[in-house]
Amino acid sequence: MPNQDEIFTWVHTAVEAGANVAFALSGLLAGIRKQLDVVGICVVMGLAAFGGGTLRDVLLDRRPFFWVDHPGWLWVLIGTAVAAIYLLRTTHYEFTERAIQWPDALGLGLFTASGTQLALAAGTPALPAVLMGVISATFGGILRDVVCNEIPTALRDRRPYAVCAFVGGWVYVFAVRFEVPPATGFLLAAGSATGLRAAAL
Amino acid sequence: MPNQDEIFTWVHTAVEAGANVAFALSGLLAGIRKQLDVVGICVVMGLAAFGGGTLRDVLLDRRPFFWVDHPGWLWVLIGTAVAAIYLLRTTHYEFTERAIQWPDALGLGLFTASGTQLALAAGTPALPAVLMGVISATFGGILRDVVCNEIPTALRDRRPYAVCAFVGGWVYVFAVRFEVPPATGFLLAAGSATGLRAAAL
Amino acid sequence: MPNQDEIFTWVHTAVEAGANVAFALSGLLAGIRKQLDVVGICVVMGLAAFGGGTLRDVLLDRRPFFWVDHPGWLWVLIGTAVAAIYLLRTTHYEFTERAIQWPDALGLGLFTASGTQLALAAGTPALPAVLMGVISATFGGILRDVVCNEIPTALRDRRPYAVCAFVGGWVYVFAVRFEVPPATGFLLAAGSATGLRAAAL
Repeated sequence: MPNQDEIFTWVHTAVEAGANVAFALSGLLAGIRKQLDVVGICVVMGLAAFGGGTLRDVLLDRRPFFWVDHPGWLWVLIGTAVAAIYLLRTTHYEFTERAIQWPDALGLGLFTASGTQLALAAGTPALPAVLMGVISATFGGILRDVVCNEIPTALRDRRPYAVCAFVGGWVYVFAVRFEVPPATGFLLAAGSATGLRAAAL
Repeated sequence: MPNQDEIFTWVHTAVEAGANVAFALSGLLAGIRKQLDVVGICVVMGLAAFGGGTLRDVLLDRRPFFWVDHPGWLWVLIGTAVAAIYLLRTTHYEFTERAIQWPDALGLGLFTASGTQLALAAGTPALPAVLMGVISATFGGILRDVVCNEIPTALRDRRPYAVCAFVGGWVYVFAVRFEVPPATGFLLAAGSATGLRAAAL
Repeated sequence: MPNQDEIFTWVHTAVEAGANVAFALSGLLAGIRKQLDVVGICVVMGLAAFGGGTLRDVLLDRRPFFWVDHPGWLWVLIGTAVAAIYLLRTTHYEFTERAIQWPDALGLGLFTASGTQLALAAGTPALPAVLMGVISATFGGILRDVVCNEIPTALRDRRPYAVCAFVGGWVYVFAVRFEVPPATGFLLAAGSATGLRAAAL
């Protein structure tokens, strides 16, 4: 029987995969809307999915990056891009932002909690550590929009997005300060960021 | 009685604070003009104030960043954004680029001198070290404009800006080469960059 | 009489110089089209020529950068910018993308091969190593276009560009795996990327 830690790791990996896929799909949508070619769609998906975490790791001077350590996900990304382009050409299925906003909210929570956790573990003070969580969760989307030549949605859409990550990051900081067990603190932080975002939708 | 070094450090910190605030205010102006939300305004202010120095530190592989080491300034930035938005909603006070061009010129000089100094101290040859000074002084503004979906002012405004930083950087390099005392070299470099910019206004 | 390695190194340096110049000229063209000032043209040329390699080095955590180690090339770049602006003002010579597409294709091949090689040497797995080659070869142009406020050509032009780099990178990976001598593998990788690009023109 698996113990609690194993279950937590398994859930964490599953949610992270879902979140990466949701972020990648937001890149797919943006790339199609801008009539990019296959390469362009792959690049924008890659920036949306891995851009935030990679920027966080560059700022924290962490290596290897997630996508260097788990290259399988890059194949998933390339496969998704090719399959999506094929599907869109042969069917009239339209998938919209509404379809990905729930996994996107999960991704927001998860990246916030893991970004803040990694930054605190690297000795970063509270506020910059929270910002590392926010950067992990939001800069993928910001890079996606910059490359698509748009003012980033996260910076002008008045519905809370980065603010949910900001609150979630502080939840993690206070969980650590009050010596809440790590897994619980992680779940509280990710849950509050995701919950606030879901409430705003 | 404080000695000369203490006075220099104090002046340096005060001017740096003024420069960071001026750069942040240029981000505030840009964010308001583009009708960003509060988060967008904070991000653009942060890029304008800390973007150039952070990029320089990534290139030089220096850690911790200024804003990780002095998180208090992040609170100042968030507070300024919230206060400015409140003020702009309740009063009809308009603040314009003219109001910030003097502290901005001070910031240009100071970032140029400190960027060049840090790069030389890390063993960078003269020209790339000068460019690190120029990057510190100008890339905050460039990132601000890229995120706001504009061609950066620093790249198309025909009035000298980066060129002043370039000259100031060389002043520092020659001051070091002719064994001018560090504080004097720093003041000469920052003074010539700021002075040239002021003359161009 | 020079041995084979010396000849290889000499050819490598010559082709790399040609490729950097071609990439810089693509930045010059973009900067002129967008009516940037001299500083803007230098920045865009610098991003186009050194941006891809610098980003690769930041991701791989390699120092010093090419342009820090060989500052002479920065003078070449500044000199080219000033000379080109002077020429364009005094003559009616128009140089177009057609004129630089051959050296650009050479640059594509060379950056692909060297980026993949450096990444494998740093212990990166195959697919991310190939992507490091693609990033070296293409992100200079992507940064150039982002700063010029355009959707990057590499992401929307339907003619293969990054795809040629992708194939070239895999040629290098398989050459290493089948224990082809390094210089031969390098030439095969660079040649296939350049050849595919040339075939697509």
